Amino acid sequence: MSTGSTLSAAAVTPDAFLKHWLGHRRLTRRTIEAFPDDQLFSFSVGGMRPFGVLALEMLTMAEPMVRGVVSGDWATSSDREAQPKTEILRRWDEATDQINALWPQIPAERFQETLTAFGQYKDLVSNLLLYVVDNEIHHRGQGYVYLRALGIEPPPFYERN
Amino acid sequence: MSTGSTLSAAAVTPDAFLKHWLGHRRLTRRTIEAFPDDQLFSFSVGGMRPFGVLALEMLTMAEPMVRGVVSGDWATSSDREAQPKTEILRRWDEATDQINALWPQIPAERFQETLTAFGQYKDLVSNLLLYVVDNEIHHRGQGYVYLRALGIEPPPFYERN
Repeated sequence: MSTGSTLSAAAVTPDAFLKHWLGHRRLTRRTIEAFPDDQLFSFSVGGMRPFGVLALEMLTMAEPMVRGVVSGDWATSSDREAQPKTEILRRWDEATDQINALWPQIPAERFQETLTAFGQYKDLVSNLLLYVVDNEIHHRGQGYVYLRALGIEPPPFYERN
Repeated sequence: MSTGSTLSAAAVTPDAFLKHWLGHRRLTRRTIEAFPDDQLFSFSVGGMRPFGVLALEMLTMAEPMVRGVVSGDWATSSDREAQPKTEILRRWDEATDQINALWPQIPAERFQETLTAFGQYKDLVSNLLLYVVDNEIHHRGQGYVYLRALGIEPPPFYERN
């Protein structure tokens, strides 16, 4: 049992999880890029939030979650103001760099520990991290519909390089 | 190194992966249920596929992927015909039962092996399984937009029980 928490069988290893997420982040970046600048914070379907607001939500969750898991520092922003696409992309790349730097600092056993993220979400670290990626995929899927409704072809879903 | 393939550190254990996916499957089931029967195979936004067709795509990927990983049998259907919602839900539940029965048969080391799924998708089993769940989340997110455009509130994203 003593090795159970650090060396349980892996469906997804830490390295594979990061690679998988980085692939999603590249695809989400291309989805942000595909929006015309003047539609990113204005266009939506069915009264939902515009894609720029969804991208900002992703930014408030992604790097802050990894930082919290590593350090216990759960500070984040609730920034929802319209910004130029170039600024969103700059922040996206900055967050990607930070995630890349923080991820190897997650101790192997941490993934199976229970934490309370942002003072309110208590779950296995494994599930907390999955939730951030799931939320990104979920909202990006909505962005695909917005793009189609604008007559723009979204980037291929299976392309992650 | 001899234990590396079976006992590598886990970001997500096999049990946690299944639980996570089953939570998503419950949410997707509620999303299917939320569609009016007469819109499931007719309504869409931006010329995209209706949600019933997307649900059928999920059915052709989910249980067949797990069965393939367990047995090497990659048979699946390419069924895209309109069907009553009750029939889609019945097939959804049947697939969930099959996934539950098959999952514990995946040998622990299999997740880190490379397979060619359905004769064409070559990747780590870990990634192949993640892709199926990602595809479900992606298309369900699109279904959320369809529901909103129909004036219907989608089920809460964070609720997975």
